[in-house]
Amino acid sequence: MIQFSNSFVRLLAELQKLPGVGEKTALRLAFHLLKSPENCSALAESLREVVSRVGFCSVCFGITEDDPCLFCTGDRDDTAICVVEEPQDLLTMERTRAFRGRYHVLQGALSPLSGITPSQLRIAELVKRLDGGTVREVVLATNFSVEGEATALYLARLIKPLGVRVTRLAHGIPLGSDLEYVDAATVQRAIEGRSEL
Amino acid sequence: MIQFSNSFVRLLAELQKLPGVGEKTALRLAFHLLKSPENCSALAESLREVVSRVGFCSVCFGITEDDPCLFCTGDRDDTAICVVEEPQDLLTMERTRAFRGRYHVLQGALSPLSGITPSQLRIAELVKRLDGGTVREVVLATNFSVEGEATALYLARLIKPLGVRVTRLAHGIPLGSDLEYVDAATVQRAIEGRSEL
Repeated sequence: MIQFSNSFVRLLAELQKLPGVGEKTALRLAFHLLKSPENCSALAESLREVVSRVGFCSVCFGITEDDPCLFCTGDRDDTAICVVEEPQDLLTMERTRAFRGRYHVLQGALSPLSGITPSQLRIAELVKRLDGGTVREVVLATNFSVEGEATALYLARLIKPLGVRVTRLAHGIPLGSDLEYVDAATVQRAIEGRSEL
Repeated sequence: MIQFSNSFVRLLAELQKLPGVGEKTALRLAFHLLKSPENCSALAESLREVVSRVGFCSVCFGITEDDPCLFCTGDRDDTAICVVEEPQDLLTMERTRAFRGRYHVLQGALSPLSGITPSQLRIAELVKRLDGGTVREVVLATNFSVEGEATALYLARLIKPLGVRVTRLAHGIPLGSDLEYVDAATVQRAIEGRSEL
């Protein structure tokens, strides 16, 4: 309908590949970038820099500039590995300061419907890390979605026979919740997992 | 707290300059881009291309690759100019196919509180376009915000003495509205502007 220039159309297409960015948001972002060419260039530059410098850690498969990453080389507890789906989940765990062991990023979750099988995740690499006998606990922190739960179950069945303790983050009532608004399934899990005061 | 690599931190900072992108969204976008280096490179490339190729039209100050732009050179009505705040507003007008004249982009709206005075907008350039006597109507399509209304009022006072007809987009009930949910001020304007059936 309206004739955009080719380079503008290409930028719109690239922006729409970003998560949560549709046609309208892409237009808004593109016009914003056009208004400040210096920001536009800086963004282009930092994207190029990230592509060339940042990669995945060859041990835990989180993101890093130096391989292996700080989490794998730092002074941390070698006897526990926390398994997460994506590199960003590692940050969520780390913010709590409650876990001081190593990490392992699966880079996804099992999803037969989307064709994601165990071989497409970093599961073989995880099992290999358990070889030496140093690791005594694997904390499964995959998402609490259908895929994440299935992945946790799969990993538990795989790892337990190796004589390693397998744990899962607790289900329960989120802090600050009104009991009234918590779903029944969560309350049920909270009752099952109740603790002494 | 968590040590990100420098290039990743720079990317986060650049992404947060985009409208509607805060810390969380920037992280989400950055991780998404990291997972697909080819998309990341393509976005960087198209940003560079846009910066180098796309600029503002020297006549209407909309965005364009060729100067003057298609709206200024195309076969359109020379007797009317529609004045909008931003280049994207031009698209909104154009989608209606109801206006076939030329355009003029102010690149902003008057806002004394933010220090935006008439000299910072493309107002002098607009007045100059009215010089020849060809233009007989200026349609003010600035936003219906405080700034947009003030800008429209300012332009009307400036242009009317030049003997050019100045019009403003109609206020009224949006199509498909439930009258019950339309604010009183809008209904008032709709009553004042009522038309014969």
